[in-house]
Amino acid sequence: MTPSLAKTFFTAMNQASPQAQALGIETLEFEPDAAVLRVPYAEILVGDPDTGVIAGGVVTTLLDHACGQAVMQALGQPTVIATLDLRIDYMRAAEPGKDLYCRAHCYKLTRSVAFVRASAFETREGDPVATAQAAFMLNSSSGLPRAASGRP
Amino acid sequence: MTPSLAKTFFTAMNQASPQAQALGIETLEFEPDAAVLRVPYAEILVGDPDTGVIAGGVVTTLLDHACGQAVMQALGQPTVIATLDLRIDYMRAAEPGKDLYCRAHCYKLTRSVAFVRASAFETREGDPVATAQAAFMLNSSSGLPRAASGRP
Amino acid sequence: MTPSLAKTFFTAMNQASPQAQALGIETLEFEPDAAVLRVPYAEILVGDPDTGVIAGGVVTTLLDHACGQAVMQALGQPTVIATLDLRIDYMRAAEPGKDLYCRAHCYKLTRSVAFVRASAFETREGDPVATAQAAFMLNSSSGLPRAASGRP
Amino acid sequence: MTPSLAKTFFTAMNQASPQAQALGIETLEFEPDAAVLRVPYAEILVGDPDTGVIAGGVVTTLLDHACGQAVMQALGQPTVIATLDLRIDYMRAAEPGKDLYCRAHCYKLTRSVAFVRASAFETREGDPVATAQAAFMLNSSSGLPRAASGRP
Repeated sequence: MTPSLAKTFFTAMNQASPQAQALGIETLEFEPDAAVLRVPYAEILVGDPDTGVIAGGVVTTLLDHACGQAVMQALGQPTVIATLDLRIDYMRAAEPGKDLYCRAHCYKLTRSVAFVRASAFETREGDPVATAQAAFMLNSSSGLPRAASGRP
Repeated sequence: MTPSLAKTFFTAMNQASPQAQALGIETLEFEPDAAVLRVPYAEILVGDPDTGVIAGGVVTTLLDHACGQAVMQALGQPTVIATLDLRIDYMRAAEPGKDLYCRAHCYKLTRSVAFVRASAFETREGDPVATAQAAFMLNSSSGLPRAASGRP
Repeated sequence: MTPSLAKTFFTAMNQASPQAQALGIETLEFEPDAAVLRVPYAEILVGDPDTGVIAGGVVTTLLDHACGQAVMQALGQPTVIATLDLRIDYMRAAEPGKDLYCRAHCYKLTRSVAFVRASAFETREGDPVATAQAAFMLNSSSGLPRAASGRP
Repeated sequence: MTPSLAKTFFTAMNQASPQAQALGIETLEFEPDAAVLRVPYAEILVGDPDTGVIAGGVVTTLLDHACGQAVMQALGQPTVIATLDLRIDYMRAAEPGKDLYCRAHCYKLTRSVAFVRASAFETREGDPVATAQAAFMLNSSSGLPRAASGRP
């Protein structure tokens, strides 16, 4: 996908997804094998009201969503993919009041599986809140019953 | 915790968490090392409007939240814990229109780490939508900077 | 596979594999979706000579190997499969001088992926040295280039 | 550790470990937060005699071992650490007849946990056989019972 096609597609995909809308997920940047997304800080995303820290589940959802968009970028087209598995390492709490960003990079494609790494952070990718390593099934119509054309 | 204390505590914890409230997470059952939670099906949780399937991120959040409550059950008291890492395997799409349940079991406690397995399903635990294996850091005040007393 | 066919097949597979031979891996039991394997304690398997503890890599290899055999049991026949990914949680050091056992259970098969959980222990499965959660690609000839008919 | 101290230490550690010796693991390069190791191709490491492909367990052991040495590099000194968990994604079969290399990078240290990523490959790090993401417990004497001063 060209950057402008990708922008159109991912914006539409985010808007069509009720849960992506509920979290406020936006896609900001498009690279050949990667995507950068943002979740703006909001009270509704907080897990622990005493700290104001965004819920771990929101971080996870952002990572998962960004990984899927990176796979589509690497494939060069909107495609039916399914998350096969996802591993998340949490380094620290997100800073209260700050937007969360995520950069995901699809570093390997085989005929049936895509492998992705991602990092969620407030300011610098090198100082992550959490990182992820994920595998996605391609052409999942013939495989896993879970088909996700517009994710998360 | 006794079942009734646990019920009081987890209900309060779910209600205090804006994100748990946004997802509608409820804790249903309390066993010595385990917890059963539910997310009622709702339009706002849908990832793909064409299929009505609940977003993968919601499944992930439910698994993460249930794992944390199972650790607190195993510890016998509300405690400051932090998710260290979480691995999720997705078996299939959740069935549209159905509530999602999750049972999490803390199968091993060491002095500093708790290990948990969980399964998300609509009807039978043996036919899961997704499974998780997670590690939580205990007494995380002296370790990971991310402290989560009320999670997710 | 019937238990006796399975025994013949897995014994041959273990003997044909130089690395399985080097570690001394034996398959002991066959259940419809599961397998139990053993690595006898041996000096050459030790990681740290000061403690006599078996190397972490041996535990990992045993877990990986057992998971693959459980998948073949669940499929009912010797099959070309490939480990897609493997997550291992280490609970504690193996006890010096003791044989290591591993029970692996294939708890879900889809058309293209098998999901397995395993536990490595000396005496009781409920007191594990390490646990694993793994995904295997089936019919991997058309997918991942890594084909493993006789593993590890 | 200075490079020459690191070389002395890791060489001694590899030689003292029977299992590292059995696999022929060598440490080649030392960077401030990283290490590069090699396993020379050998018949005894083969998993499937029909293909000559090195056993998956050897790849895993190499990844695990390299991750541990990267943590010690990042800490700046030989230290008692314990693998907490390890996730491995397998991209493809190793090429028969070729040595395997692994570069591991410790990308985050907290007070109690170290996070590492690693890649196993024959020629180019960017074309991996397998990748790993791992968490190690530091000062594990007071935590996990598994203490590994000389690993794997």
